[in-house]
Amino acid sequence: MADTTYDILSIGAHPDDIEVGTGGVLIDQVKRGRKCGIVILTQGEMGTGGTAEIRKHELHAAAKVIGADIVKTFDWGDTRLEDSYDKRLALATVIRQTRPRIILAPYPHIGHGRRQSHPDHVAAGVIAVNAANLASLRKVQIEGERHLVTRIFHYFLPPGVYPHFVVDISDHFEQWIAALSAHESQFLNPEKSRDYIDSLTTMAKSFGNMARCRYGQGFVSVEPIQVKDILCLVEGQEGYR
Amino acid sequence: MADTTYDILSIGAHPDDIEVGTGGVLIDQVKRGRKCGIVILTQGEMGTGGTAEIRKHELHAAAKVIGADIVKTFDWGDTRLEDSYDKRLALATVIRQTRPRIILAPYPHIGHGRRQSHPDHVAAGVIAVNAANLASLRKVQIEGERHLVTRIFHYFLPPGVYPHFVVDISDHFEQWIAALSAHESQFLNPEKSRDYIDSLTTMAKSFGNMARCRYGQGFVSVEPIQVKDILCLVEGQEGYR
Amino acid sequence: MADTTYDILSIGAHPDDIEVGTGGVLIDQVKRGRKCGIVILTQGEMGTGGTAEIRKHELHAAAKVIGADIVKTFDWGDTRLEDSYDKRLALATVIRQTRPRIILAPYPHIGHGRRQSHPDHVAAGVIAVNAANLASLRKVQIEGERHLVTRIFHYFLPPGVYPHFVVDISDHFEQWIAALSAHESQFLNPEKSRDYIDSLTTMAKSFGNMARCRYGQGFVSVEPIQVKDILCLVEGQEGYR
Amino acid sequence: MADTTYDILSIGAHPDDIEVGTGGVLIDQVKRGRKCGIVILTQGEMGTGGTAEIRKHELHAAAKVIGADIVKTFDWGDTRLEDSYDKRLALATVIRQTRPRIILAPYPHIGHGRRQSHPDHVAAGVIAVNAANLASLRKVQIEGERHLVTRIFHYFLPPGVYPHFVVDISDHFEQWIAALSAHESQFLNPEKSRDYIDSLTTMAKSFGNMARCRYGQGFVSVEPIQVKDILCLVEGQEGYR
Amino acid sequence: MADTTYDILSIGAHPDDIEVGTGGVLIDQVKRGRKCGIVILTQGEMGTGGTAEIRKHELHAAAKVIGADIVKTFDWGDTRLEDSYDKRLALATVIRQTRPRIILAPYPHIGHGRRQSHPDHVAAGVIAVNAANLASLRKVQIEGERHLVTRIFHYFLPPGVYPHFVVDISDHFEQWIAALSAHESQFLNPEKSRDYIDSLTTMAKSFGNMARCRYGQGFVSVEPIQVKDILCLVEGQEGYR
Amino acid sequence: MADTTYDILSIGAHPDDIEVGTGGVLIDQVKRGRKCGIVILTQGEMGTGGTAEIRKHELHAAAKVIGADIVKTFDWGDTRLEDSYDKRLALATVIRQTRPRIILAPYPHIGHGRRQSHPDHVAAGVIAVNAANLASLRKVQIEGERHLVTRIFHYFLPPGVYPHFVVDISDHFEQWIAALSAHESQFLNPEKSRDYIDSLTTMAKSFGNMARCRYGQGFVSVEPIQVKDILCLVEGQEGYR
Repeated sequence: MADTTYDILSIGAHPDDIEVGTGGVLIDQVKRGRKCGIVILTQGEMGTGGTAEIRKHELHAAAKVIGADIVKTFDWGDTRLEDSYDKRLALATVIRQTRPRIILAPYPHIGHGRRQSHPDHVAAGVIAVNAANLASLRKVQIEGERHLVTRIFHYFLPPGVYPHFVVDISDHFEQWIAALSAHESQFLNPEKSRDYIDSLTTMAKSFGNMARCRYGQGFVSVEPIQVKDILCLVEGQEGYR
Repeated sequence: MADTTYDILSIGAHPDDIEVGTGGVLIDQVKRGRKCGIVILTQGEMGTGGTAEIRKHELHAAAKVIGADIVKTFDWGDTRLEDSYDKRLALATVIRQTRPRIILAPYPHIGHGRRQSHPDHVAAGVIAVNAANLASLRKVQIEGERHLVTRIFHYFLPPGVYPHFVVDISDHFEQWIAALSAHESQFLNPEKSRDYIDSLTTMAKSFGNMARCRYGQGFVSVEPIQVKDILCLVEGQEGYR
Repeated sequence: MADTTYDILSIGAHPDDIEVGTGGVLIDQVKRGRKCGIVILTQGEMGTGGTAEIRKHELHAAAKVIGADIVKTFDWGDTRLEDSYDKRLALATVIRQTRPRIILAPYPHIGHGRRQSHPDHVAAGVIAVNAANLASLRKVQIEGERHLVTRIFHYFLPPGVYPHFVVDISDHFEQWIAALSAHESQFLNPEKSRDYIDSLTTMAKSFGNMARCRYGQGFVSVEPIQVKDILCLVEGQEGYR
Repeated sequence: MADTTYDILSIGAHPDDIEVGTGGVLIDQVKRGRKCGIVILTQGEMGTGGTAEIRKHELHAAAKVIGADIVKTFDWGDTRLEDSYDKRLALATVIRQTRPRIILAPYPHIGHGRRQSHPDHVAAGVIAVNAANLASLRKVQIEGERHLVTRIFHYFLPPGVYPHFVVDISDHFEQWIAALSAHESQFLNPEKSRDYIDSLTTMAKSFGNMARCRYGQGFVSVEPIQVKDILCLVEGQEGYR
Repeated sequence: MADTTYDILSIGAHPDDIEVGTGGVLIDQVKRGRKCGIVILTQGEMGTGGTAEIRKHELHAAAKVIGADIVKTFDWGDTRLEDSYDKRLALATVIRQTRPRIILAPYPHIGHGRRQSHPDHVAAGVIAVNAANLASLRKVQIEGERHLVTRIFHYFLPPGVYPHFVVDISDHFEQWIAALSAHESQFLNPEKSRDYIDSLTTMAKSFGNMARCRYGQGFVSVEPIQVKDILCLVEGQEGYR
Repeated sequence: MADTTYDILSIGAHPDDIEVGTGGVLIDQVKRGRKCGIVILTQGEMGTGGTAEIRKHELHAAAKVIGADIVKTFDWGDTRLEDSYDKRLALATVIRQTRPRIILAPYPHIGHGRRQSHPDHVAAGVIAVNAANLASLRKVQIEGERHLVTRIFHYFLPPGVYPHFVVDISDHFEQWIAALSAHESQFLNPEKSRDYIDSLTTMAKSFGNMARCRYGQGFVSVEPIQVKDILCLVEGQEGYR
């Protein structure tokens, strides 16, 4: 892959993570003409539904719906992902190649073993933060010119962690559901008793409710957000009721 | 005053509050062609330096440096400002007249009796929040058509309260210092032993440091920020180091 | 009113508050044979829809759907509710008469001027907490024998305040919507552009999502909850997925 | 061991951990006819008092006082316990065999090197959370049918972490002290200068004080607690004073 | 009263507050030769035990045990204490007269209606913070020369608020119990069913446990503590176990 | 190295860490006749400026300015520092030899990949906390007599983490800058575009501003601070303004 400049690099542990946590944002960005990349750290082979092969196909279908590039998929072991120096270097290399301004990655602190703080998600967040650090150091022995990511924002917020900002995805809701639906083995699997699409819809409405839009995706920014034009924080929004 | 639509209404308890907490942001907005208004709730007559008369002149001089309109000054009693229904109605009337999209107001929770949580500042924050609520209710018996403010952001953060976002004011630093210096009786008063300008500069650099710009002003948003285009959160910013 | 022992007393500022924040819980309790009372502190006369008269009818209709008693309605001024000693005494008298084990009241800290932290809601929470204190003091000059409420739980949580517990109201969802719908002037008013029922449904699903049930209502307990039998915290719940 | 259904599985790093943090709760549950299991991850061989052999005897004596089963003891290295995939699998296997509804495990975040955040305790909490996740996945290559734990609650709360709920152990205090006293080498060792029993008693009284009972044990629930019948939160409790 | 310089001014709402929250600290300071003053804002006439007259005697007896001066007692209404400008001025006058370096006052935020966040305690905290502010302003029309308190520390911490520092009162425990016991109508009243001395002892042991001393009293400092010599933070303390 | 008793042991990941985070405090302590030691865990060979050799010289020059002893430098891999049992043992051995009362170490929780939460810093904090634990255990197979550190305080606080206390370093500011300047390859490197000395000065002024001194260094204490004489918290400080 030749070096390219991406606006956003969305990093997930499993084939459907970035759709669930960041899909609406990527759709929005692609519509605005921005370049979005996807990196997946494991093949999701331990999921109750699907196989590595099936999930790869689903990932490609979803990425197509979104309009983002799958820039890299690693095979670092579903349910056993762990932070290590080698993995940091490998991901840092991808960061240097894609040169994103924003990285979207899972929240890097453990909670309970549910979706938002699945151990692989925590590890993915830690690896992403550490890889971004390495990518910026001149002496690190990896290919590519050093690159400084401007910001890392975290998705998959565990219970009790409130988003700092919510991106309005109301205009892209149908397309987001389409992207999620591409992961048929996960979300439309008749063997599973739970209605995933309904539950993900609730999540998007909850985030929307918090920030007063219909559907949203929420993020934590460990550092305070830097704003140039404060009016961009109310852009296109009506008054509240 | 005829009804006008303001982009931002900055509300302070004393004649110099809005300069200290929001001056750089207002300068930035005025330069971008936005309409900014100032409301002061007391005349600042209890300040160690200055008198009500002197401070009024200084306020006007500072507003001129900033380029904002002084839309209203109340005389609700320096050091004794308290939330009351009448004050809420009076401020709600101003809000209906100025119809701002954003209100900037002090943080409305008590801390210690220093600058950031001076009792008047706390009361100003409470009155502002409550007035914004009244301004939006059809049946409230005040003049003007109901108005829904889009967002309220808080300045004057007490110890332990971290900003959610920082507005970069680096390009306006000199002008901000000029606006502060217009409050001669407060910040350049030889009778006072403290170097206020130095201390305010440190505050701006601290906020800048938190969000990686040279000088900044920090704000808390009680509700999560709503963002349309996530790239506006890295607009004009370099990568980090 | 003769003295009666209530299991729960739900206190609200406006005629529809207790339905929105606690309605499902009351329905559940009534079905279990518990005695639930409602106290409203203002007549809600400033609401965009309805009048004091209309809202009184709606309140009665809603209470009927729920199966709870309206034990008292005060007329303390919609949009201008304030904590005062006299109000505390008046509410303390009701507490002594009804002798509840649990009080449900709005969260007593200011946030922004939206539903969850409407100034009247904050005041209602403060009055409730203070009245419960007075009700327990022997020397307070009000009628009735002193009464000690066992716990106060808060609803109407402002942004950033996470519930400590969520009551599962899934089995009562339809009935809860029916109770809300009794407040026709508020939630089914064609003059209002917003779909309130949808938004309240999202709120219930969000709380449910946090605690893994379909629909829920969330509460904050300032003191740690006291539990006798730890298994009551998983009663009737399946494992998680 | 044949598969059995446990109500509670209490997991500790060292032979006395579950007594200190959860002993009173287990005694209460056993008295109510519930089935409680104990898992210990190391033999505690680095403790100042005792040896692996002595501590094993003490563990059995304590379990007898409590009335719980020691379902498994691992030998994963006192002072050197670390999360790893193999350990997760091994513990997940025990979880599938015991099929608990509730897991009690140490708080999984590092603090200082004292009792509440001993590195082994942190590791035990992390392994427990991750093992519970693995136990629920169909494809994980371990014995037993997948099992979904309903809730994980954390004990051994580090400084600054407040319990979400406290279990009243007042009626079981003497028996709890008896269980602790079975760990003679730890708590009644004349070579140690500190009065451990007094210090543990203070801990139980502090938790009790927080939640208004005489003696208690405190827990954190990362997710909001789900409640079916809100009155179970005041069951058997008097009003407060 | 002629102007005097006090090291510490401890402010309480009721006659026994400063003993409960700060008594051990005052005993320690008096033993070190420091000058400590007590201010009480109400006469405690609504307490279940005692009368205004009895409680005054008890206050004097307790102050004698402590060795502190009762510099002022106000009669601002037990159970109905409220922040007002006049009360701030009156207390500011006392602050100017006593010129303390440290003020100890209740935590100024509402919680539940129990001891730590009794409405009078909250009001006392608010009045103290605001009076300290007024005392420092040259133009305030009260007697005495302006005075700047160095620090305000808060006692009576509500549930969930963790102390920033704990003062070791182990060497003064017996004397502290003696001071508490002087409030016979409150803590040794046979009409009351609760064992107050035991409960206050637990509180002191809990604080001690948090900071590793036998008995302690805990405080919150809203601003970070300023330290000259970092070793004073371990002065006289052994290593931990 | 023979066993010696140090007052303070400052532990850093890279050659300049302890100067940045704790240098002013060490200078202060040395001036008071206290014995201060420095331990560095990596050689800093991956820094954009300098080499392992150059940085070693700079470290020695800086230590000389400060007046502290470099008691140990490890070579555990810049950018790849990880907590492990062997590293804990090695550092515990140094702790037993130096027998410090206070350990200063980086904050041990991950944030973003910037200075304050560089992965090596997080690892250094974790290793320090764990090594202090091991150093106190009799049975650990390392040289030296068991040692109990009295307190661990953390520097390098990530965004959103507020200091519990700030040490006033105003009198040592010039000397602190001199110590930082000894790290020429890092802070005075013409190849680097950023003005590090200015940025570090802002950090010291920010901490000073929080606690009301000119320049300060801030620390977090996970456990509440224990204080013998409360007046030591205002020692040498004027009233506030």
